[in-house]
Amino acid sequence: MSENDRLGSYVETGKEFTRDMRYIATRITQDGRDGFPVEPGRYRLVAARACPWANRAVIVRRLLGLEDAFSLGLCGPVHDARSWTFDLDPGGVDPVLGIPRLQNAYFARFPEYDRGITVPAMVDVPTGQVVTNDFPQMTIDFSSEWREYHRPGAPDLYPEPHRDEIDEVMELVFRDVNNGVYRCGFAGSQESYNKAYARLFDRLDWLESRLSDQRFLVGETITEADVRLFTTLIRFDAVYHGHFKCNGKKLAEYPALWAYTRDLYQTSGFGDTIDFGQIKDHYYIVHTDINPTRIVPRGPALHSLLTAHHRDELGGRPFGDGTAPPPVRPDEAPPAVI
Amino acid sequence: MSENDRLGSYVETGKEFTRDMRYIATRITQDGRDGFPVEPGRYRLVAARACPWANRAVIVRRLLGLEDAFSLGLCGPVHDARSWTFDLDPGGVDPVLGIPRLQNAYFARFPEYDRGITVPAMVDVPTGQVVTNDFPQMTIDFSSEWREYHRPGAPDLYPEPHRDEIDEVMELVFRDVNNGVYRCGFAGSQESYNKAYARLFDRLDWLESRLSDQRFLVGETITEADVRLFTTLIRFDAVYHGHFKCNGKKLAEYPALWAYTRDLYQTSGFGDTIDFGQIKDHYYIVHTDINPTRIVPRGPALHSLLTAHHRDELGGRPFGDGTAPPPVRPDEAPPAVI
Repeated sequence: MSENDRLGSYVETGKEFTRDMRYIATRITQDGRDGFPVEPGRYRLVAARACPWANRAVIVRRLLGLEDAFSLGLCGPVHDARSWTFDLDPGGVDPVLGIPRLQNAYFARFPEYDRGITVPAMVDVPTGQVVTNDFPQMTIDFSSEWREYHRPGAPDLYPEPHRDEIDEVMELVFRDVNNGVYRCGFAGSQESYNKAYARLFDRLDWLESRLSDQRFLVGETITEADVRLFTTLIRFDAVYHGHFKCNGKKLAEYPALWAYTRDLYQTSGFGDTIDFGQIKDHYYIVHTDINPTRIVPRGPALHSLLTAHHRDELGGRPFGDGTAPPPVRPDEAPPAVI
Repeated sequence: MSENDRLGSYVETGKEFTRDMRYIATRITQDGRDGFPVEPGRYRLVAARACPWANRAVIVRRLLGLEDAFSLGLCGPVHDARSWTFDLDPGGVDPVLGIPRLQNAYFARFPEYDRGITVPAMVDVPTGQVVTNDFPQMTIDFSSEWREYHRPGAPDLYPEPHRDEIDEVMELVFRDVNNGVYRCGFAGSQESYNKAYARLFDRLDWLESRLSDQRFLVGETITEADVRLFTTLIRFDAVYHGHFKCNGKKLAEYPALWAYTRDLYQTSGFGDTIDFGQIKDHYYIVHTDINPTRIVPRGPALHSLLTAHHRDELGGRPFGDGTAPPPVRPDEAPPAVI
């Protein structure tokens, strides 16, 4: 997501941070009931390495092996006042969509679109129109609607018998952790910060306890709930701890959570979507109302992400009856592991 | 120190942070050659719990038992555009000097004083005039010029046989650590930040190595060099790590440095001068150009400061042939330990 419209304007003095959750609800489905049927080669997922919400979609696409079903476009880490841009691409233009700014795809469908120009977005390549930016639905649809195009051995990230529990965990994690870190960082008052901070660290304690004797959040396998938690945890020490004042502890100070994060980071489809340089650049350069100097910290040292995690001793079967995805394609790999 | 004149203006875009080191060089000496002889009951040390430079003077006064030789006035954590103020005192007025703002004492001596109104400052109570704010000289003079008034069992913090080594260590620590954290935090360019960051963490590695097999920085006893390093280290995780982007590691991630910090923190005269509430309030509220929201983080959890340090296993005699100071006087104790 871009989180807000005006560059650097995220904090409303005296107020809580409230995320605008009005997304484009159009879905890409097997039956095409919204006018956009599942069709390989037709759509392009536009994401950004920096963004935790887009990161979910990139990971799920990797885990399910949907690389041939829809392509991946990547915006640069530092968007401007109104839009994420394709400034990493030659000529500053997305090579498939032929547009310099993600807003071009939004305006192609809704000329008067006045909400946030956010990633992840699925774009209809033939018309150049955005289809949806509804990120919570998007990854669920990758699992369910695109099933026919999953790779052999793809995991079931949203298994029917566990859906209630997955939904329940994801809701708590969204409120207190995924969005909770933003509520800390963009708090407009000490009171709203304190409240968000308490909820965040209470929830991390709860997660630490939950993950102390089970390898993954729900059931025995990696699910959508793990993907959603991971994209926040992997950014925690690099960005949220300092920039968003989530400084009760570093994630590395939680034995189970840190080992869990390392486990996933070292799993094909997770760590190979992460670019810490872009992540740090994004937060520290874009949010000028909390970092007016735009100086990007050099720390923290993160090489311990590659150390042994021993989470397999807890049992669990990461991909269930399936298999891990093959290595990331060279043209989609981030520049360096850490 | 107040670090600068204008509230919230610490960063000069494009430039390195350069500390104004022009202090009032007048000294209080046994022979009174500058017009201010050592005389118990005549002077008042004005400090602030928040300030690491003032903290040195408060610690040295405690270690040497100079509480009856000169009194202690404390400014609040949040100074305004031009001066530290006595906003913690009843009526907002220092009870001994009868002034609301430290600048009153500076102007009493130099009506046109145009440099920083800084703590620590020694003030001549009868005339209400500041004598000196030359903080590196001040604590050395507490050790040497005020020797007659030291408590029985006071340590020698600046022992003659080790002075060259103490001076050498203090110079490196000042450049790379004490002032180095400010050079990170107030850097006006990414380049100057990167340079300060590299020097800081290289020096912390050097200190970690040095303190891995010796209990104190120089010789077998606590010296002035330890006092000066301590006042920065104790603020490191609470403030410098996040606020000043010194985020390579937390201090708690350096085994020797963290145990060394705990050792000193748990020593009478050190920990009983520390007020983390005031420290955090000061940095996060005063430096509006790097924290415009003025929101003060709730973390980090620092209770591990009270855990066993085992530094005594390295040998060393903290107070040499002397003794630890008695507990802090109730009227000079900070509100809570952590």
